[in-house]
Amino acid sequence: MQNLYAVIMAGGSGTRFWPASRVGRPKQLLALAGASGEPLIAATVRRILPLCPKERIYIVTAEHLLAATREAAPSVPAANFLSEPSPRNTAPCVGWAANVIRSRDPDAILMVLPSDHHITDEPSFVKTAARAAQFASESDMLVTVGIEPTRPETGYGYIETGDAVADGVLRVARFVEKPDQEQAAAYLSTGRHLWNSGMFFFRAAAIADAIRRHLPELAAGLERIERTGELSAVFRTLPAISIDQGIMEQADRIAVVPGSFGWNDVGSWQAAWELLPKDAMGNVLPAGSIVVEGGGNLVCDLTTGGRRRVAALVGVSDLVVVETDDALLIIPRERAQDVRKAIELLRDRGDDETL
Amino acid sequence: MQNLYAVIMAGGSGTRFWPASRVGRPKQLLALAGASGEPLIAATVRRILPLCPKERIYIVTAEHLLAATREAAPSVPAANFLSEPSPRNTAPCVGWAANVIRSRDPDAILMVLPSDHHITDEPSFVKTAARAAQFASESDMLVTVGIEPTRPETGYGYIETGDAVADGVLRVARFVEKPDQEQAAAYLSTGRHLWNSGMFFFRAAAIADAIRRHLPELAAGLERIERTGELSAVFRTLPAISIDQGIMEQADRIAVVPGSFGWNDVGSWQAAWELLPKDAMGNVLPAGSIVVEGGGNLVCDLTTGGRRRVAALVGVSDLVVVETDDALLIIPRERAQDVRKAIELLRDRGDDETL
Repeated sequence: MQNLYAVIMAGGSGTRFWPASRVGRPKQLLALAGASGEPLIAATVRRILPLCPKERIYIVTAEHLLAATREAAPSVPAANFLSEPSPRNTAPCVGWAANVIRSRDPDAILMVLPSDHHITDEPSFVKTAARAAQFASESDMLVTVGIEPTRPETGYGYIETGDAVADGVLRVARFVEKPDQEQAAAYLSTGRHLWNSGMFFFRAAAIADAIRRHLPELAAGLERIERTGELSAVFRTLPAISIDQGIMEQADRIAVVPGSFGWNDVGSWQAAWELLPKDAMGNVLPAGSIVVEGGGNLVCDLTTGGRRRVAALVGVSDLVVVETDDALLIIPRERAQDVRKAIELLRDRGDDETL
Repeated sequence: MQNLYAVIMAGGSGTRFWPASRVGRPKQLLALAGASGEPLIAATVRRILPLCPKERIYIVTAEHLLAATREAAPSVPAANFLSEPSPRNTAPCVGWAANVIRSRDPDAILMVLPSDHHITDEPSFVKTAARAAQFASESDMLVTVGIEPTRPETGYGYIETGDAVADGVLRVARFVEKPDQEQAAAYLSTGRHLWNSGMFFFRAAAIADAIRRHLPELAAGLERIERTGELSAVFRTLPAISIDQGIMEQADRIAVVPGSFGWNDVGSWQAAWELLPKDAMGNVLPAGSIVVEGGGNLVCDLTTGGRRRVAALVGVSDLVVVETDDALLIIPRERAQDVRKAIELLRDRGDDETL
């Protein structure tokens, strides 16, 4: 598809992987999945190359992350990095990128992707994304990809599907919030619920229309940026709202392409442990580590300086241990979400250096 | 007492405090008790000064530890450090020191002390040691100090006492090995059992006599060292046996002075945790650490280089965490003895650098 463009959203400042992730080194820049040592954003770029050459891949990131993001995704042309002057959530990000790309190609089809997810079955992902892009190009609908659930997951938002609108494409009945355990089990059994992947496909003109209709203030701001070139001054006045809440949940002509390709949003150290290659006892360890009677541990050594460190775990199991030059985190894997509580304490005491 | 000399045994290569203790930095050189930052050996020297001026304090250590030991106990004259050419356990150590001191003062009384124990009530210790030294000077008996037990401890050897031989001095009926839980409880209830502190008091001539009688091979070797000055060549041929097994448990005229002065042999990270000042949740932490819902942890940061490290513990309790530049240990406090299992694995793979 000659007019398919990718917009990779890479402005996130995820704190769930502290102390590996930092304000200046968010999750998408880390190699949290697989043995390859490939940052998540590099994997995101690599796996869409069958759909979209690198010249048509755009990456939207924050100003303070620009240099590090370019380094993590060196194949993308430097001119295709869009640097947001201030964080305004995803609707301004997508709207701005759509305008930039539309000025290059008025018939552009956009494929909007998170930068920090993991996908196991890449050929299947490419097939699903191609179908979504194709349908977006043939219609004025906003299209998303929904993941066929494999477990009663309470950590994801869901999409309730309606009737088929084309081969392999369903209407979205509604978006539903993260469910409780009982609801999640019910969703799994209906066969009509999909996980919200946060991937979007639409014609650049179609999303511009939707923004004008549902977020007129954002449309006006984006138009002013285009007309005056005053990016910094205007961007920080744009309404800070997500594309999910501001557009997708408001619009009435939304379609979804179901897919099943080993998707994981890598939302916590627990998820990273699930994705990383483990030894026979379920441990993920740096070379040279020692475990005496313990399993299910994830040890992540990000210290620099080339000194060899031996991690010795004796009689401990199911722990996440992360070492950097200036911090050490120890947390049970099943409590991985509570990393935020440590971050809050650091914030409370104004410890900006370690955040 | 003008002829009282101290012999501090500091050749130990304790591995129970790995990775803080190393082959080149054993336990006695570490500040494992109290808030003072004072190495255990420095505290040992300091607390005997009321009994014995520094000119009469001798420290026996290993050649490879000489420089570090002098640094840790700078008040002791450099000439009073005796450096063993090879490790031969405590009987050769004591016998050699006794000969060296006897050549300086034929009437010397020796107070032989481990270098790596902790004592809370130092005035009471001084009083007990003074009584033991006094009795040793007035008799030909070998005298030890026994600690009045406060709990059914299974980690110490015991002394079963016999009749009184002088005011505050009892005959030793026998030395008994580390008991099981049931025996330990029985020992506690008899009132006739004391903990073996590993401290000895005797006239230098009396221990020389005892060595001649019970360890004639050692006596011959020591005599040869004295006569020929060939320390290295002879020392490594001396029988490697402890003074407890080789002398105290063999001789029949052994006395014990009971004492009660908050003695602790600092035998494990668990013992160190007990001795160190704790926060309200029972945590021992470096400055700047964060704990979210966790108590009873000991975090020991021995990394160098001046970089500030934040240790963040979330939802973990009763762990020992020790960081050095080249190693990280995580072990439950109650399993602290199992550090040796990690050491064994390091030895098995020939990891001399980290031992």
